[in-house]
Amino acid sequence: MEKLQSLQRLEEALARLPGVGKKSAERMAYAMLNFSDEDLIEISDAIRELKQNIHFCKKCGMITEEDECEICKDTSRDDDTLLIVSYPKDVITIEKSGTYNGRYHVLGGEFNIAKGIGLESLNIASLYKRIEEEHIKEVVIATNPTVEGETTAHYLAKTLEPYHINVTRLAYGLQMGGNLDYVDPLTLSKALEGRHKI
Amino acid sequence: MEKLQSLQRLEEALARLPGVGKKSAERMAYAMLNFSDEDLIEISDAIRELKQNIHFCKKCGMITEEDECEICKDTSRDDDTLLIVSYPKDVITIEKSGTYNGRYHVLGGEFNIAKGIGLESLNIASLYKRIEEEHIKEVVIATNPTVEGETTAHYLAKTLEPYHINVTRLAYGLQMGGNLDYVDPLTLSKALEGRHKI
Repeated sequence: MEKLQSLQRLEEALARLPGVGKKSAERMAYAMLNFSDEDLIEISDAIRELKQNIHFCKKCGMITEEDECEICKDTSRDDDTLLIVSYPKDVITIEKSGTYNGRYHVLGGEFNIAKGIGLESLNIASLYKRIEEEHIKEVVIATNPTVEGETTAHYLAKTLEPYHINVTRLAYGLQMGGNLDYVDPLTLSKALEGRHKI
Repeated sequence: MEKLQSLQRLEEALARLPGVGKKSAERMAYAMLNFSDEDLIEISDAIRELKQNIHFCKKCGMITEEDECEICKDTSRDDDTLLIVSYPKDVITIEKSGTYNGRYHVLGGEFNIAKGIGLESLNIASLYKRIEEEHIKEVVIATNPTVEGETTAHYLAKTLEPYHINVTRLAYGLQMGGNLDYVDPLTLSKALEGRHKI
């Protein structure tokens, strides 16, 4: 039995979303057959209009619906520290932890040779300008602990040397509440390397 | 930090899909920020137009893009047997197994008091008409082995008594390739009840 075209088309569209395989796309598509027309239009519009009001903060590269993002506009934050992340979502994650009160700079990606993401496609040029103009004293590099994130971090650390400021990297180590049994060997060796007195 | 309105709206829309929780909706929404405008429009359109061409087969209740569904139109199938399922997707599942060659009747749901799904919202009236007009000899009830599916099955079996035809139900039992360790007690007792000579 051939699958209906409208269903097939929707399944293929949904399968592009992260974490959605062929099977879940099928399940979603069939479930949507039971949605009301209003619900389908609301979901459809939310997708279509997603990027219409969202753009990048001209200062830090974070996503915003205004000219400058909320954090850049906030005068109560520490102006001395700049934390560099790869993706806008990382800013939300760090803000949720409530442990950082400085400024951010969002690269919009990480070096990735396989995907052809190089220097020119990242929000890096303005970084050096900001460090000078805003008299930044410390740069915390918080790219992901992956090959791409590490490469990006090393590149940044290298090019930031001439500025004579503190350049730091988030610590590697055990996850709080985790279990030693489940820690991979590389993380364990990093945790041992970074051990400190208690 | 407040979440952007466009993102928030999309996350809420996506969270209505089956199997999509708050966390995955968030992940999907952020991923979609990196989609091209064309891709977003394609997904949006696929959702919006899903039900425009799909309706129910006037004969069996299966979804179709034509007047009558593929199976009802197929003259090579066995006209004596009618298999009753709750949802259109169940037809696809049974067709995939390749073990049934009769006709189908799709109820479009199951009795569910909690959700207010009663007799009138199911495709039942036409069932009795079909049994008479098409001279059906056997009805196989293949609703789900859940409380709702069982209630529906019992109701159907009861109301089909006056027709003096064979009314059967799919067998309960062990799953092929499964392990006895993982079988729930109810299924096990049903499997024992339905034991047969080898």
